Amino acid sequence: MRERELLTRIADRSANLTDAFAQVLVGPGDDCAIIEATPHPLLLTTDHLVEDRHFDNALPLELVARKAVIRSVSDIAAMAGTPSWALATALLPVGYKHADELFDHMARYAREFACPLVGGDIATLPPDATGPISLTVTVGGHAPRPILRSGARVGDDVYVTGPLGGSLKHHRHALATPQIDIARQLATSIHAMIDLSDGLGIDAYRVARASNVRIELDASAIPIHPDANGLDSALSDGEDYELLFTSPVNTTFPESVRRIGRVVDGKPAAILNLPDGSKRDVSEQGFEHG
Amino acid sequence: MRERELLTRIADRSANLTDAFAQVLVGPGDDCAIIEATPHPLLLTTDHLVEDRHFDNALPLELVARKAVIRSVSDIAAMAGTPSWALATALLPVGYKHADELFDHMARYAREFACPLVGGDIATLPPDATGPISLTVTVGGHAPRPILRSGARVGDDVYVTGPLGGSLKHHRHALATPQIDIARQLATSIHAMIDLSDGLGIDAYRVARASNVRIELDASAIPIHPDANGLDSALSDGEDYELLFTSPVNTTFPESVRRIGRVVDGKPAAILNLPDGSKRDVSEQGFEHG
Repeated sequence: MRERELLTRIADRSANLTDAFAQVLVGPGDDCAIIEATPHPLLLTTDHLVEDRHFDNALPLELVARKAVIRSVSDIAAMAGTPSWALATALLPVGYKHADELFDHMARYAREFACPLVGGDIATLPPDATGPISLTVTVGGHAPRPILRSGARVGDDVYVTGPLGGSLKHHRHALATPQIDIARQLATSIHAMIDLSDGLGIDAYRVARASNVRIELDASAIPIHPDANGLDSALSDGEDYELLFTSPVNTTFPESVRRIGRVVDGKPAAILNLPDGSKRDVSEQGFEHG
Repeated sequence: MRERELLTRIADRSANLTDAFAQVLVGPGDDCAIIEATPHPLLLTTDHLVEDRHFDNALPLELVARKAVIRSVSDIAAMAGTPSWALATALLPVGYKHADELFDHMARYAREFACPLVGGDIATLPPDATGPISLTVTVGGHAPRPILRSGARVGDDVYVTGPLGGSLKHHRHALATPQIDIARQLATSIHAMIDLSDGLGIDAYRVARASNVRIELDASAIPIHPDANGLDSALSDGEDYELLFTSPVNTTFPESVRRIGRVVDGKPAAILNLPDGSKRDVSEQGFEHG
């Protein structure tokens, strides 16, 4: 079973959590879980960063730490939240010489995104194992009005906050800045949101599935990053850490925000409209991080 | 550098977090971090559980899941808190067949301790790696009056909530029940608390160091579990998940709570008083989990 299928099953199985536990407002399956809190709900997210899966030896240690932090911070942004604290764990080879440096970098980036590292745990691999190094970062935040994946409505337009694709080039996947500020500004005027971590195709489909709608994307409207290798790269590379959101038509946004499609009635899917009038289902188009 | 030294350095380096970030009431270094929240502070803790370090193949998968959950729940108990939610991550070999079962068990135990599993992440090891399996469980909770390690006062008595030692026998380390209820009852009458995860010697020393006091333990008063191999086993086996706390003299506690020593002035240390009148420094006596 692939990770994403397993995560979907866990989410499905947890559907009754909100009935059984009054404090749970949103359980597994969105960018963050949401726990009842005063004055604003508590957002929770945790992400793995595993050597040879999410990064390789070419990535400087400082950027390994940065990426570990931004993955989770971006999930908070995707709910229109403000990060508040972070926890980190590291699984490291015995005698690993850079542990202190690694935690220093994680602590520094956590502070930079206003979610100071308040705790964590370190464990060593068995004596004969040299890897993989594995990090997890958990971030908590708050949102006066959390934006879920499930809020898209038929008739909405679909937007992205910036150009997509080619994120592995030039370490962009580790240098991206989570879109916290713009997400907070958007919160009063939008219906659904997700951060683009796995790829435009699959992430748009996730919004479609959660909202029980169909999302149509216009190939000619998708902003392609100069690093990208054309449209397919923009659709499937992932790790952009831009936001996709849906909003009522005729809403005005900053110029950097691009309208790329619309929400329509139909079986949940992400459908690409090509300039020649043909359509392509891109619901599976994205990167399996593992 | 050993894990515990590194964790101490991280805690030392984070000492100014509470000045820089108003929401941080207690940073790294205690059983939990504490974040300002209404009506009660938010407690946060995260722990690793790594194959061949914290468990081996002899431990049934259900108990692997249980142990992953109780390690963090016990940290919440150690602050006199009530668990509220949990997040879990798993790092598993490619094609691992028991992932669904593992998360099922973790979800079930998280519910049992009233901290439903509201989110998580799964990642796979590189294709050629068969292990180690690594889990992390993060638990959040609340405490009207969190009890820190740093509150012990000269003149306090020192207590434990149950017999110690031999926890690896009969899977007791995975079958222990975190002392949530008794900890909450104690909260109004005690000064400092810690859960005994690494061993009585080192954990008593942690309270001594955090409180800048010396702790004297009476060898004849330490309750030794029938599974234990004598006093040394009770002092150093760890993974008991009982609580050690300090309290003003002449406080009355349930019969299961045993007075084992006292808090005195002096250079921070955990000192064992033996029946022959000799003394032994047991500040380092405990299990290095890795």
